[in-house]
Amino acid sequence: MKFYPLSEHIQGLETHTGYGYSGVMAEVTTPRADEAKTAYLNRLRRIEGQVRGLEKMVEDDKYCIDVLTQVSAVTKALEAFALALLDDHLGSCVKDAVRAGGSVADDKIREASQAIARLVH
Amino acid sequence: MKFYPLSEHIQGLETHTGYGYSGVMAEVTTPRADEAKTAYLNRLRRIEGQVRGLEKMVEDDKYCIDVLTQVSAVTKALEAFALALLDDHLGSCVKDAVRAGGSVADDKIREASQAIARLVH
Amino acid sequence: MKFYPLSEHIQGLETHTGYGYSGVMAEVTTPRADEAKTAYLNRLRRIEGQVRGLEKMVEDDKYCIDVLTQVSAVTKALEAFALALLDDHLGSCVKDAVRAGGSVADDKIREASQAIARLVH
Amino acid sequence: MKFYPLSEHIQGLETHTGYGYSGVMAEVTTPRADEAKTAYLNRLRRIEGQVRGLEKMVEDDKYCIDVLTQVSAVTKALEAFALALLDDHLGSCVKDAVRAGGSVADDKIREASQAIARLVH
Repeated sequence: MKFYPLSEHIQGLETHTGYGYSGVMAEVTTPRADEAKTAYLNRLRRIEGQVRGLEKMVEDDKYCIDVLTQVSAVTKALEAFALALLDDHLGSCVKDAVRAGGSVADDKIREASQAIARLVH
Repeated sequence: MKFYPLSEHIQGLETHTGYGYSGVMAEVTTPRADEAKTAYLNRLRRIEGQVRGLEKMVEDDKYCIDVLTQVSAVTKALEAFALALLDDHLGSCVKDAVRAGGSVADDKIREASQAIARLVH
Repeated sequence: MKFYPLSEHIQGLETHTGYGYSGVMAEVTTPRADEAKTAYLNRLRRIEGQVRGLEKMVEDDKYCIDVLTQVSAVTKALEAFALALLDDHLGSCVKDAVRAGGSVADDKIREASQAIARLVH
Repeated sequence: MKFYPLSEHIQGLETHTGYGYSGVMAEVTTPRADEAKTAYLNRLRRIEGQVRGLEKMVEDDKYCIDVLTQVSAVTKALEAFALALLDDHLGSCVKDAVRAGGSVADDKIREASQAIARLVH
């Protein structure tokens, strides 16, 4: 797998903290290997399709419990996507940072722990 | 709020148990009031937009942690959608079933409890 | 199953809102059937035993991942306990309130929805 | 912080996979620094106290919704404990394994990812 040089991530660390969804995105990128990227995109497109399926169910006045069953399926799919991405992140960015040593490694680990906490809550 | 007569739901109960996502959908519908339906659809369309935003982030090689932050936001939005729908369901279908009395009330409550369990896990 | 008369719950509703853990407990009680109560207590005692098992693991310097596996087991046991209690609550207090009619039914449903939301988050 | 030499963890990896709660515990230990250990034990004792508080609530026939509120508090406390332990684990065992290099690093990361997945579900 090909990943950006560590220095990019170091820059990223400084600009990242505390911005929300609608805030300005820091220009940090993580070029993913082509197959990995395609696999992630396919998962997300399936999830997008599931959400459109939910819209159709509401439009067609489908029974609440059936809609809720589908919401649980979409949530599970999103969680599985997140866990795969996190595993990749630990095995690439975090690993690279630890190898490079210094305080960046600890920053990366703290950052990963915070992302895990957001997934758990 | 206008809701289907209870008899529809009673029918639904018999045909519902145990089918999965890809299975044949029972023809049970829950006509929702127009405003409620519009509000639910708007929520889902926003969620669909957020998922497309995730695809864009992956396409643009955005930093993993930023993608994960967005996944958490989408998951929260889906949970909030599910909780709103469940609250409506308890306040309409389940309430109607309890008022009508008989074993249907218990079936509806068991069905709701199972849906809650799926949301929690 | 034997449950308190509805009026108790109605009183409870007024005094309940917004108190936290360390706050003054409203004097609302839900006498549970003897077997149900024993079953709930046994579950909780098992969970207490699991927590003590966790303490022993930390005292004995057990491997983090093993401790985490046990924490997940305890969390699942607590969730299962909560789901059983919620199911009972829907099938007794909420059902009774709906049968009695009036605004209390809606209050009870809102209260249950809020408890569900706390379990999901 | 003082931690066991890496070789212990390598041994641990082989004996760990696939044992459940009641199974035979692999003899892998993670000596934690004294303050960290005391802090973890104090958290767990507080959680044990909360579980005993739940038993008291059930014994005293406390209102279901109040019991559920307390269950949510205990679950949150357990999650916070797990997240702290996981953060420590990433910053010690996983970091050490990555520094030592070789396939153990990947095993440790996979093991951590699986523990995260158990916390999320």
